[in-house]
Amino acid sequence: MWGSVEGGGTKWVCAVGTGPDDIRAETTIPTTTPDETLGAVIDFFGEHGPVDAVGVATFGPVELRPGHVDYGRITTTPKPDWSGADVVGPIHRALGVPIGFETDVNGAAMGEMRWGAGVGLESIIYLTVGTGVGGGAISHGTLVGGLSHPEMGHVSVPRHPTDRFPGACPFHGDCLEGMAAGPTLEARWGMPAPDLPASKAAKAIEIEAHYVAHGLRNFVYTLAPELIILGGGVSKMPGLVESVGEKLVEILADYAPSELSESGFVVRPGLGARSGIAGGFALAQSVQ
Amino acid sequence: MWGSVEGGGTKWVCAVGTGPDDIRAETTIPTTTPDETLGAVIDFFGEHGPVDAVGVATFGPVELRPGHVDYGRITTTPKPDWSGADVVGPIHRALGVPIGFETDVNGAAMGEMRWGAGVGLESIIYLTVGTGVGGGAISHGTLVGGLSHPEMGHVSVPRHPTDRFPGACPFHGDCLEGMAAGPTLEARWGMPAPDLPASKAAKAIEIEAHYVAHGLRNFVYTLAPELIILGGGVSKMPGLVESVGEKLVEILADYAPSELSESGFVVRPGLGARSGIAGGFALAQSVQ
Repeated sequence: MWGSVEGGGTKWVCAVGTGPDDIRAETTIPTTTPDETLGAVIDFFGEHGPVDAVGVATFGPVELRPGHVDYGRITTTPKPDWSGADVVGPIHRALGVPIGFETDVNGAAMGEMRWGAGVGLESIIYLTVGTGVGGGAISHGTLVGGLSHPEMGHVSVPRHPTDRFPGACPFHGDCLEGMAAGPTLEARWGMPAPDLPASKAAKAIEIEAHYVAHGLRNFVYTLAPELIILGGGVSKMPGLVESVGEKLVEILADYAPSELSESGFVVRPGLGARSGIAGGFALAQSVQ
Repeated sequence: MWGSVEGGGTKWVCAVGTGPDDIRAETTIPTTTPDETLGAVIDFFGEHGPVDAVGVATFGPVELRPGHVDYGRITTTPKPDWSGADVVGPIHRALGVPIGFETDVNGAAMGEMRWGAGVGLESIIYLTVGTGVGGGAISHGTLVGGLSHPEMGHVSVPRHPTDRFPGACPFHGDCLEGMAAGPTLEARWGMPAPDLPASKAAKAIEIEAHYVAHGLRNFVYTLAPELIILGGGVSKMPGLVESVGEKLVEILADYAPSELSESGFVVRPGLGARSGIAGGFALAQSVQ
């Protein structure tokens, strides 16, 4: 029996089970302070355990290098109280079982590979487009990373010819996240995407697909994945995933394996909103 | 004893030994037709062998998926006679030993990891900037790839503010390769880089560093490597590697681990021009 934790900026979801189709207990905890939130996480597993291992996939940036003095911590987040917060330490001390630790998107990639759209594949990308843009990649079965984890939302993207939005990333301005995340979409159109009238929705999709596809182009030429999974709130805009797939084929300009031009190379998560919690189970199993 | 083959567009280099510091025999064969060139490769190992395994790293694109009907072939190169050429088959049939097969840049990354600038690391990028631009990446000890191998030269890069060169990539125009490869440099300035007068050389370095650093930015945010090794003819322009390192730090804009800002994150190959032939030995060992 494993524990899974999906730690986000507004809520932490915890589950006990053996996979996304076998969840024995689950809870949602509001993200307040690290002490309070992690305390509630520990209480949940105390009540619904024992578990043999726990997989924790959280918002970042995080320190993933096992030998590093800050291993298991969230590092320099702007989120109040959470900069430097030790996540792995308190859970490990309280439960005394192995703890797997990854970014939320690395976890989602693991979950999709094990139980979702990536089953049977070895090299995939999971990209979330929501409040921010982030990605996790698995190549030949191994999570991609090194000095730290990927920050795929911050690659450069060429401007859409009719888009005058300056870009909202506090670091880079008009990087992928700065041009394609939810808050940008809302600022560009003056309203949340679901409220857009039909007259504007088509243009909004076109511009959004332009940026996401140009981000994917960079990932395809760097990672050569077998499949790209597009998750997050913004990816639910009707027709966006299909538009991104078509735009990607157009801008790769035939310089790519032919399989990439087939429909089904860019897909929605096979597990819907459960990729992350599934990833926690896969992560727990990997460290058990 | 291993065999190493570095297959390029103008010459194929073959060596017998156990590593770059222990080469027992070596030869250089002009690239003519596949029959003639591979025949000479086979003759060399017949004469200087026996070897226990051979590692072959060649120009691409190549088919690397072991189960694929075209495994071991160069696929759709514009190079006359070589499109579809079977590289692994003839060598394997003639020598009867295991053959490792990779792209030239994947091979160079393996060589640098084993004997060069990447010793002791787990995640590196080897980028060559020469007649073309190409890269190989190792992440947590595993070569990055999937549906195919990376084509890092084809990521998008923002235009340098004073550069009016349209871009020379036949597929994408102004991608990294189209803006930074040797032929582009020569076309932009009307002469080969080594011939540039001092009055133009500084500006040429600045523009070249801009494009290479912007390419590296995309690789850093996608792969999070511990080290970037910059090889190829163009990388020998005096001061270029240093300028690229400084420019990269500037455009990452503090959104990266602090280790990245230290000098020595972007370096020259530890093996000089021997990365590729070293990679063939590492590759041979990996399949033996």
